[in-house]
Amino acid sequence: MSGYNHLFIPGPTNIPEQVRQAMNLPMEDMRSPQYPELTLPLFADVKKVFKNRNGRVFIYPSSGTGAWEAAMTNVLSPGDRVLMSRFGQFSHLWVDMAERLGFEVDCLDMEWGTGVPVELYAERLAADKAHEIKAVFVTHNETATGVTSDVAAVRAALDACGHPALLFVDGVSSIGSIDFRQDEWGVDCAVSGSQKGFMLPAGLGFLSVSEKALEAAKTARHMRCYFSFDDMIKTNDTGYFPYTPPTQLLRGLRASLDLMFAEGLENIFARHHHLANGVRAAVSAWGLKLCATEPKWHSDTVSAIRLPEGVDGAEVIRHAYRTYNTSLGSGLSKVAGKVFRIGHLGSLNEVMVLGALGAAELTLLDCGVKIEPGSGVGSAIKQFRSAATASTAKAA
Amino acid sequence: MSGYNHLFIPGPTNIPEQVRQAMNLPMEDMRSPQYPELTLPLFADVKKVFKNRNGRVFIYPSSGTGAWEAAMTNVLSPGDRVLMSRFGQFSHLWVDMAERLGFEVDCLDMEWGTGVPVELYAERLAADKAHEIKAVFVTHNETATGVTSDVAAVRAALDACGHPALLFVDGVSSIGSIDFRQDEWGVDCAVSGSQKGFMLPAGLGFLSVSEKALEAAKTARHMRCYFSFDDMIKTNDTGYFPYTPPTQLLRGLRASLDLMFAEGLENIFARHHHLANGVRAAVSAWGLKLCATEPKWHSDTVSAIRLPEGVDGAEVIRHAYRTYNTSLGSGLSKVAGKVFRIGHLGSLNEVMVLGALGAAELTLLDCGVKIEPGSGVGSAIKQFRSAATASTAKAA
Amino acid sequence: MSGYNHLFIPGPTNIPEQVRQAMNLPMEDMRSPQYPELTLPLFADVKKVFKNRNGRVFIYPSSGTGAWEAAMTNVLSPGDRVLMSRFGQFSHLWVDMAERLGFEVDCLDMEWGTGVPVELYAERLAADKAHEIKAVFVTHNETATGVTSDVAAVRAALDACGHPALLFVDGVSSIGSIDFRQDEWGVDCAVSGSQKGFMLPAGLGFLSVSEKALEAAKTARHMRCYFSFDDMIKTNDTGYFPYTPPTQLLRGLRASLDLMFAEGLENIFARHHHLANGVRAAVSAWGLKLCATEPKWHSDTVSAIRLPEGVDGAEVIRHAYRTYNTSLGSGLSKVAGKVFRIGHLGSLNEVMVLGALGAAELTLLDCGVKIEPGSGVGSAIKQFRSAATASTAKAA
Amino acid sequence: MSGYNHLFIPGPTNIPEQVRQAMNLPMEDMRSPQYPELTLPLFADVKKVFKNRNGRVFIYPSSGTGAWEAAMTNVLSPGDRVLMSRFGQFSHLWVDMAERLGFEVDCLDMEWGTGVPVELYAERLAADKAHEIKAVFVTHNETATGVTSDVAAVRAALDACGHPALLFVDGVSSIGSIDFRQDEWGVDCAVSGSQKGFMLPAGLGFLSVSEKALEAAKTARHMRCYFSFDDMIKTNDTGYFPYTPPTQLLRGLRASLDLMFAEGLENIFARHHHLANGVRAAVSAWGLKLCATEPKWHSDTVSAIRLPEGVDGAEVIRHAYRTYNTSLGSGLSKVAGKVFRIGHLGSLNEVMVLGALGAAELTLLDCGVKIEPGSGVGSAIKQFRSAATASTAKAA
Repeated sequence: MSGYNHLFIPGPTNIPEQVRQAMNLPMEDMRSPQYPELTLPLFADVKKVFKNRNGRVFIYPSSGTGAWEAAMTNVLSPGDRVLMSRFGQFSHLWVDMAERLGFEVDCLDMEWGTGVPVELYAERLAADKAHEIKAVFVTHNETATGVTSDVAAVRAALDACGHPALLFVDGVSSIGSIDFRQDEWGVDCAVSGSQKGFMLPAGLGFLSVSEKALEAAKTARHMRCYFSFDDMIKTNDTGYFPYTPPTQLLRGLRASLDLMFAEGLENIFARHHHLANGVRAAVSAWGLKLCATEPKWHSDTVSAIRLPEGVDGAEVIRHAYRTYNTSLGSGLSKVAGKVFRIGHLGSLNEVMVLGALGAAELTLLDCGVKIEPGSGVGSAIKQFRSAATASTAKAA
Repeated sequence: MSGYNHLFIPGPTNIPEQVRQAMNLPMEDMRSPQYPELTLPLFADVKKVFKNRNGRVFIYPSSGTGAWEAAMTNVLSPGDRVLMSRFGQFSHLWVDMAERLGFEVDCLDMEWGTGVPVELYAERLAADKAHEIKAVFVTHNETATGVTSDVAAVRAALDACGHPALLFVDGVSSIGSIDFRQDEWGVDCAVSGSQKGFMLPAGLGFLSVSEKALEAAKTARHMRCYFSFDDMIKTNDTGYFPYTPPTQLLRGLRASLDLMFAEGLENIFARHHHLANGVRAAVSAWGLKLCATEPKWHSDTVSAIRLPEGVDGAEVIRHAYRTYNTSLGSGLSKVAGKVFRIGHLGSLNEVMVLGALGAAELTLLDCGVKIEPGSGVGSAIKQFRSAATASTAKAA
Repeated sequence: MSGYNHLFIPGPTNIPEQVRQAMNLPMEDMRSPQYPELTLPLFADVKKVFKNRNGRVFIYPSSGTGAWEAAMTNVLSPGDRVLMSRFGQFSHLWVDMAERLGFEVDCLDMEWGTGVPVELYAERLAADKAHEIKAVFVTHNETATGVTSDVAAVRAALDACGHPALLFVDGVSSIGSIDFRQDEWGVDCAVSGSQKGFMLPAGLGFLSVSEKALEAAKTARHMRCYFSFDDMIKTNDTGYFPYTPPTQLLRGLRASLDLMFAEGLENIFARHHHLANGVRAAVSAWGLKLCATEPKWHSDTVSAIRLPEGVDGAEVIRHAYRTYNTSLGSGLSKVAGKVFRIGHLGSLNEVMVLGALGAAELTLLDCGVKIEPGSGVGSAIKQFRSAATASTAKAA
Repeated sequence: MSGYNHLFIPGPTNIPEQVRQAMNLPMEDMRSPQYPELTLPLFADVKKVFKNRNGRVFIYPSSGTGAWEAAMTNVLSPGDRVLMSRFGQFSHLWVDMAERLGFEVDCLDMEWGTGVPVELYAERLAADKAHEIKAVFVTHNETATGVTSDVAAVRAALDACGHPALLFVDGVSSIGSIDFRQDEWGVDCAVSGSQKGFMLPAGLGFLSVSEKALEAAKTARHMRCYFSFDDMIKTNDTGYFPYTPPTQLLRGLRASLDLMFAEGLENIFARHHHLANGVRAAVSAWGLKLCATEPKWHSDTVSAIRLPEGVDGAEVIRHAYRTYNTSLGSGLSKVAGKVFRIGHLGSLNEVMVLGALGAAELTLLDCGVKIEPGSGVGSAIKQFRSAATASTAKAA
């Protein structure tokens, strides 16, 4: 099929050219004397993205799922009680992992399209006078439904009742794209992966931990070896890894961090918000609804869009891919076939978003959804221009 | 600036990934015993794109301009009379080159926005009983104004009066994208370059010549060395070059020809027509006019779009580039500042075109052109879908 | 530093250009309808490299260490008794992992420079009438000392006493380079990684399992989630993964398997033997000794070479790297500082080996080792030529 | 064939990884507002390599041969008398070009293996009281025979008799590798290409001209268009080109100049001398002779090595390529079949040279040349080490 493939899934995301260049490398020796010149700054700089000053970060040769497991098996012990909530496929998988790894999970099942129920969490924590809950889990951005939750509010709930539980955050599809403040929000384990906001291929799992989590790890009794903090700490401190690291990805990470800092984290967050607003304007112009039930849940990295009754979401995805060389995100699990998703995170600009919306319009029309051709793109354009005007006005 | 650059100039065009992969190579020996396994099929296959069965093709390490010069200096002699026409910047440059290389140029100056004046050519040729005109020149696709001329009609004019003049065609922005038939149309010298329909970086000039042109070259008396047919023929026949060839580009050419044949030349032409129709539907919806004055001149590879009075075309180009990371083509020479151009050739699909149109809408609105946001994109979508329906109906 | 870096560590190994090209890719959708066209043949073809017909292979986004852990945690249960041996850093780490994952390890500590003690294994197995030993572990190629062990003999020992224990093989630095026959040798879990014989960057752990191991996994009670067979089997069977796979590496794996099958596995093994013989001829000419104590232990993928007393191996490695842009392998753990290693596996030919030997000669001389300049290279050349003559003679 | 290809021809040379990375790029707009940020520093920096302060440099999309033609056709007029000498295939081709382009060539034919005959030049110039000789040509480094000539001495000869002729230098295989000083030596036209010391693929021809040459060009009457100074000057001054430039190569040139300046030109020259000494030590140890008849002609970028009677040079080249994946340079024209060449220029280090020598030894032995295996490599190692010791001693 002629022309580029258009990738608008919520990760893996488009790789910037500088990152791609940086990974186009012959093999190199991961035990060379110069290797720490690459790795030591990486550890320091990934921490900056998490806004983690005093803890440390682990970079695993794994997907983000591996970093989830690393967090649980290093910091907690089998049988520990944990407080979780489920409102989408990824929060579901996290709950599932916790159960399989032997934790006692208090899982709050919420409507898909909503996020972490802060008030229910607060109640549970207040009620837990014995502090049996060892950790509280927050899916910062539920990728399946396009819902962002309020991490700071969960921290406040913990503090309000003086609860010592550790705070675990899944930031796979948020960190590096949406505001995240590990120190300020008192997050003990924050997980991310290379293939979303970090704009790299999959293959690196990031786990950023607080000093409190490191302390807890010393007495945790779960079995682990590949993901063990100890081996990592021993070798990372001198710039090496306990097993062969994926050097090409690390070279790419260097390039991607350079790009992120050059743009500035706050500017990245603002850009994601700006672009997401364009997508939401289009959805509204089409007369469709987001899966996220209220504006407060709107995600700036991915929009899950409900399809009218009778339209098969799987067919929408297939048609976009086969006919228009465009990858959209499918509905997963409970919302399979009912939604399609547009990922709008990572290396992205207005024109890419307009292309995505154009592709969506073509596809929706072909699949029988009654929308006005150009309406979504037109609304996004208006939204982009009004924001630009506003920001110019503010600057003046 | 975040996200991809959007390249919608009429060349150099977007490089397909397969071509880019093929050029990502260490250096290799251009005198190795295996080298002819690369080059001999290239010569044969480039000829297929030109539809040249009996002549031969020269691949110069140069831009297309170099291939223009190669055609003139090998086949003609200083002082030869040639019939040319000028109606845009590239036909102008060709005339200019002919004059500087010492030919006696009969130049017909036509309105920019029209093409080769076939009837005037016919008159001149009929009047030239002495056959003083040695060559007739046709700019197949004038890239500056988005105008395609009728090569076959010029051939017919030559034949009608039995005129033996050679036929030279500039196909830099047409060959490989728009129907071209060297043998059938009796074209003696056809020029193209790597950076348009061949989807490669600039750096290769193609000159496809008929047997008649090769014969003429034997007695032509222009001085040339770098572009000399003789040196090329001697070495090319065994798969080598008279000087170091740009091997990476030749490897890319292999990949690009493979892609072209896999899609099929006729399918490529149809795709270009389809996508160009989408662009033209958008222009019409915006209430703007093409530079090409009549539908018969419409180019399927590039559209030059007239801007309303008072809008500075240079500013439009700059704004698109700086604000939206989008490269549009500027107006050149006589139409500088008055038009902007959208290149729609090479590796391209519907969604790329919708992105280009979205970028153009954003830019035009920002620059004060009164268009309805989404109108162009919407019209292109309708155009694309109606064509798809038509083709489905035909197939059924 | 000018010129290429010369990489002669025992992995990660040099990446063939075709593989590097194949990985130079934009991001793609790992849930696209076409994705299984990539992945399903990969699973089938990796099995061919392991010579595993009836079992299945798991491809983990991890290092080879991850695949070790996957084998243990899926097929065994905490408290299971396992028979292992330790004679180098990598067999040591495997023992260490087994202990940390809660197995009862019978570890036979052998001299470094020897390999798996088949006779001792046979005794232990024969003595284990109650079949308490659930698994027997073989480090096929100990990368730290350049020692290859006899897997078939261990299988024979198991069979001789009718012992039902599972057979685990670490083939990280052997499989794809040295003869390995999973079915024929009755290997239940064979582990490898992308960065050695597969000639890829690190990042993929391969675990090839027999039907017997799959059966055992159904009742094994170790906790695991990231490395769980179940999730993999469910998704792999349709061509997908339970979490985002590293697509670039999978594209590279396709290219690398194509190269391996084009050369032929048996030819690859012969080439490794041929090149290793050249290295060993050089070592002998230098008057130095291999770490492997007897020819039967000689590894065809890596040679660990003992340095004379008083020469610091770490300094040898550093000097080669800093002065000659050459990466040699260092001595690890017990042999740290006492040996240096030359990796001779993966994408390699005679001239690369001569370069490595030249680099080693320069370095050894600079570091005060008394060798005759050119002696090692000369002996390798003689060895290579005599082998070529022999093979020609045989062919005639 | 497994493993890397070993490239030891005298150009195109090995591409450094940084340069290769820099060329791995999507297409970009060569008329963008930012384009001059790339090009203007390139013009300035290429001049630094030529040590040309007051003149200017032209970068042609062509091979070095194109730059030869550019020099002649812009600065001289048909019928001009020029003084040249011929002592190898490349000086021959230059003479041939001069004749074909209509100059009256005084050609001194010298023995192949010697260089520019400075004394004969001096005689001719002194005898030319009428100053009919308009230009004197020097092939700085004759690539076919491995001979370097003395440009400064030719300048001195011109000055000695106050002759105003222009001085043309072919520095294709010297500039950027061997000392060259355009201003100091009063060189008016110096030609080079991208594929030698500049470590890029072929495709850029460099022509560095003095103010005197620019002045001469104003009245020169040769016809030219593609290579015309005027068009270049007009567009280059604002950072653009008169036709589409090969942007990927320009991006590569940026990276390659950065590498060259980081190493330092004088250090590059010293490195080439050092490595060439190693090659010459090997040749001597093999008992073979260089084509260059005296040490004063020895080239630091390429050695042409005479083969014993009865050994077919073409077979040597073919055998090295087919059996050892090694590209050596063949003998050209008069010395075809009698010599083989080792290119030792560009991105190169000691270990690469040892690899080349090892490959040569294997090949020579296979082809029946009686040399002692390891003797050449051993001598080169001694040479490298004694130089290192000397330089350490000097530094101390």
